[in-house]
Parts: sequence; structure tokens; C-alpha cells
Amino acid sequence: MSLRDVTFLDFIQDRIQQVEERMRFQSDGYSPELKFALEYILSAGGKRIRPAIVLLVGGMLGGKPDTLITLGASLELLHTATLVHDDLIDGSLLRRGNFTLNANWSPAATVLAGDYLFSRSASLGADLDNLAISRLFADTLAAIVSGEITQLFGRQRTADREAYYQRICEKTASLFVFAAKAAAMVSNVDEEAIEYASSYGHELGMAFQIVDDILDFTGEQATVGKPVGSDLRQGIITLPAICYQELHPSDDSIAVVFKGDVEKAQIERLIASIQASEAIEHAHQEAEQFAKRAIAALEKLPGEQARGKEKQALRELAEFVVSRRV
Amino acid sequence: MSLRDVTFLDFIQDRIQQVEERMRFQSDGYSPELKFALEYILSAGGKRIRPAIVLLVGGMLGGKPDTLITLGASLELLHTATLVHDDLIDGSLLRRGNFTLNANWSPAATVLAGDYLFSRSASLGADLDNLAISRLFADTLAAIVSGEITQLFGRQRTADREAYYQRICEKTASLFVFAAKAAAMVSNVDEEAIEYASSYGHELGMAFQIVDDILDFTGEQATVGKPVGSDLRQGIITLPAICYQELHPSDDSIAVVFKGDVEKAQIERLIASIQASEAIEHAHQEAEQFAKRAIAALEKLPGEQARGKEKQALRELAEFVVSRRV
Repeated sequence: MSLRDVTFLDFIQDRIQQVEERMRFQSDGYSPELKFALEYILSAGGKRIRPAIVLLVGGMLGGKPDTLITLGASLELLHTATLVHDDLIDGSLLRRGNFTLNANWSPAATVLAGDYLFSRSASLGADLDNLAISRLFADTLAAIVSGEITQLFGRQRTADREAYYQRICEKTASLFVFAAKAAAMVSNVDEEAIEYASSYGHELGMAFQIVDDILDFTGEQATVGKPVGSDLRQGIITLPAICYQELHPSDDSIAVVFKGDVEKAQIERLIASIQASEAIEHAHQEAEQFAKRAIAALEKLPGEQARGKEKQALRELAEFVVSRRV
Repeated sequence: MSLRDVTFLDFIQDRIQQVEERMRFQSDGYSPELKFALEYILSAGGKRIRPAIVLLVGGMLGGKPDTLITLGASLELLHTATLVHDDLIDGSLLRRGNFTLNANWSPAATVLAGDYLFSRSASLGADLDNLAISRLFADTLAAIVSGEITQLFGRQRTADREAYYQRICEKTASLFVFAAKAAAMVSNVDEEAIEYASSYGHELGMAFQIVDDILDFTGEQATVGKPVGSDLRQGIITLPAICYQELHPSDDSIAVVFKGDVEKAQIERLIASIQASEAIEHAHQEAEQFAKRAIAALEKLPGEQARGKEKQALRELAEFVVSRRV
């Protein structure tokens, strides 16, 4: 089941469309190649889970619809910019079943297209007339890059849960925090509510990334779009590998694989061992704990009566994130 | 003569140092690789001409020193981010005689280092508490990228002065405009003064880029750091080539070269012809016109009495930009 199939977001689909339109509108006045790049990237679609969080949290807390659409568009452009640079870094030619920009464009043009998306995101962000959000925007980008570079330099060569959490917090959860926190910030609620919204975003983002990392082991290549175990093949240790090491403390295959220079068959064996072990279930239980904490933070927020629909959708989103198979 | 040798900027050197320190200070709290990258990039130095404009224009118009230092640091980080991505795009291994980051780092890490500099620049920009500047920041980045991508896609294959001016306005002058305009904006002067400051930045930036493009033909490889005529070799038409075409309308070598698939000797001959022609002098006269208009805009600005030193330095800067040999 993918986010495209769920029904609990149906009632915000027209607002999601408005977010898409606001993103597109940002390309006017610059080179035609950039307009083309933006159109191309946006037409590839995406789950738009981050704008959905903005619309739901802000909707629940009484934020103005137009402000939330601008915020959602700014956020999704920031996310898209990091994806464009990511795909270049990974050399990925496919994302979500579509060719990525860099499969058609040169690396140079792809770098610039990503930079352009940053600028359009920052421009929309400035439209919010909220300096605290501009600051959060800048710090979120720094956190994402910091997480990416830690992963790229492969500093984490041991099964260390804390280092893993730190990395996915920066790389992924930071943008979920931005979505929920900024939505609360534009909605005129008190500091406490902003903190609960921020917690919801953090816990949800952590759960989301853990499930992504599990799907890297359990998903089918056709739906995930990458070979099974691709993280491990690239030298990236994720939660299933960490849980596996805990379950089998005397098995040194992870250490061996990370010393490098191993045969492909050894990596295949390790991937198969992790897949067959209880590590997957253990990792999944951790993701569920994050989702539960997300819901607990959500329950502290107002919005039960008039805007119960948004609150219910945020609950279902947290449940969905850990039950999804794609 | 290089900007490092001039004396008219001596009186702002300690403030330039403070700009450098503020740039360095931005790396705290993120991955050690990013701290290293920022240190490395900053240690390579640079002329810091853009922060100098900020300090001089803002100083002349009564802006607060601390605000100007923050603005100068934000601006120079933005400039540096675009340079890091540029060097990657060009595959340049040297800049200002130092190895560029991408000669040591992988392309992936270099993309991320540039993104990180964007984020640190945006963060400092937000410290200015001025939304109009945040907006100008975003639009300046978009303009730079637009100019770069136009150049990259090599859409300009004919000796068209207007297309050339449009491209260098976006690619280079936009950041000089940002420097002078934002410095005026934080200095509590009226709209008219902001516009004159903006004009000074524009005219100076145009002159600066034209001279850069002339030096690509006349400079020595050792000082410029690139082979002579490198723009033309990369398929980029600049003002000396445009002036050459005007002086020799029946010479079709430019058109031939831009059809591609020519022998290297043909390009060498064209470069030698441009070097030997009056095109260089014609292009230089255009640069001087821009510098004169920069000074004319400057004269409309206040600052004659108490802060005459800054105004005089801005005059000398405009004169220097067109007389420099590096």
C-alpha cells in the first residue's frame, strides 16, 4: 500500500494541488532551461507527504490556508532540491519510476537546477514574512547536508544505534520537524503547542526513515526501484543491520564487510542473513515506538472538535508510515 | 596590479577580517567534514571585493558596523557557495592558485559542501532581521544560476551584445547589486539612495565582468590560472569576440568555430586574431563607460563630508576594476 492509495488524505487533495501550482509558478522570469527543469522535476510527482503535514498541522491549529500553501510549496521545493542533488550524488537514474533529471542532464546542469530550486524555495519562504521560519529553513538545510555528508563519508562503520539515529535525525527527520513546527509557528499557537508539533514531526520522520531502511531489505526491487540491500552495498549501516548485530554479537560479517575489499558473495550472504533474522521485526518495533510517540505528541495538541478531521488524518498518517510496504 | 596590492582599502582591513571570522563561525554544530570544508575554502582567501562594497557603501550611508559585517559575511558565503559549485561544473582544479575543494573531494561531497555554504549564508542573512533582504538574497541566487545555466547550455552562439549583457548581468552583476543595495537597505536611507547604490553595484559588476572577459584574452596563463582564450575554447562568446565580429563583419571564423567540430588550430588562430585586433581596446572602452556610470551614481549618494573616505574608496574601486591586470 502506498501513500497514493490511502483515503485519509482525500479531503486535502485540492490544497495539495494548490501547493503544486505554487511550486510551478516560481519559475517565471529566469532561463527557459530552468523553467523546463522545474516542470520536469515536478511532473515526476511524489508523495507530497511533507506538504500534507503542513496542511494538516496548520489546518488543525487554525493557520490561514494561503500561508500554509506557501509554506508547503517552499518546503517541498527545499526537499526536491536536496533530492536533485542526491540523485546526482548517488548516480541514480530512476526515482519513483521516472528518469531523474541527471539521467538526461549533465551533472553540471543538475547541480545548477538544484541550486535554482533552493533559490525558489527561499523566495517562497521569504513570502511568509516570518524571520524565525527563514532561520529554521537555513538550519534545516544545514542539518540535511550534515546528515548526508556523514553518510557519504561513511564515518559510521560500526553497528552504533546512536550514530544512526543522529544521522537519520539530520538527514530525514529535520524536514518533518520543519513541516510540523513551521506550520504551528504560522498558526498563532503558544510555545508549548509549537513544541508538541515539532515532536510529532520528529517522531514521524524517524519512523519514516527507519521503515525506508527496512524496506531496503524487504522491499521488492521493482517497487523500491533499487537492488535489495543497496544501503549495505554502499557501505551504509542502517537499523536492520544494527539489530542483526545485537541478535548475533559473535557474527563478525558486518565488521568484515566494512573493512572493504570483500567478495560480492559475502555481502549477499549478509543481506540474506539479515532478511531471514528477527532483526527486521526488531527494527520495525522501534519504528512503531516512534509512531506511537508521534501520536502521543499529537494528542497534546488542540484541534479535537472543529478540526478533528485533520487530527484524525495525522493519526492515520503516523500509523500508515509504519504499515506501508512501499 | 591586483586588489591585494591596492592601498585604498587599507582602512577597512580589520572589518574585512571580522567578516572572515563571522564566516568561519558558521560551521559550529554540524559534521566535522563540513567544518573542515568551510575552513579549507575560506583559507584559500579571495579578494573579498563584495564584502568591501558592503562595508564601504554601508559605511558611507551610516549603517551599523555589526550589521554590515553580518551582511558582508552572508554575501561572501553565497558567492563562495556558487564558486564551489562552479569549480565542480568547470572541473577546475585550481582557483586563485590554490587547489579547489573538488580536486581533493569527490563531486558528491563538493555538491554538499556548496549546499552547506548556501545554508550558512541564508542563516546569517536571517540574522539581519530584514525580510526584503531575504527576498533579494533568494532572487540573486536565482539570477546567478540563471546566468550560469544560460552559459552552460551555450544558447548564445552568435556575437550578440544584448544576450551577453543579459548573461553577465545575471551571472556577475547581480551579486554586486545585492552588495551595494542591501548595504543601503540596512542603512536607513530613502528609496532614491537605495536605487543609486543599486546602480553603482550594477555598473561596477558589469565593468568587473567585462574586464575579466578581456583578461581571458590578454592575461598570462600563470596569473589568470587558465589557458588564454579559455572562454572561446569552451564555446562561450564574450565582449572581445563580439567587438571583433563588429570590426570584421565579413570574417566568419566565430560562426565556424561555434558550429563545432573545428580543428584546434582554427580556434588558436581566432584567439590570436582577437588578441591582435582593436577589439580588446573597444571592449575596454565599454568597461570604462560602465565604471564611469558607477561613479556618476555614486556621486548622487550622500557621504561627502563625514564619511568621505568610504566614498573616495568606492570611486577608486571603480577605477581600479577597469585598470587591473589580474
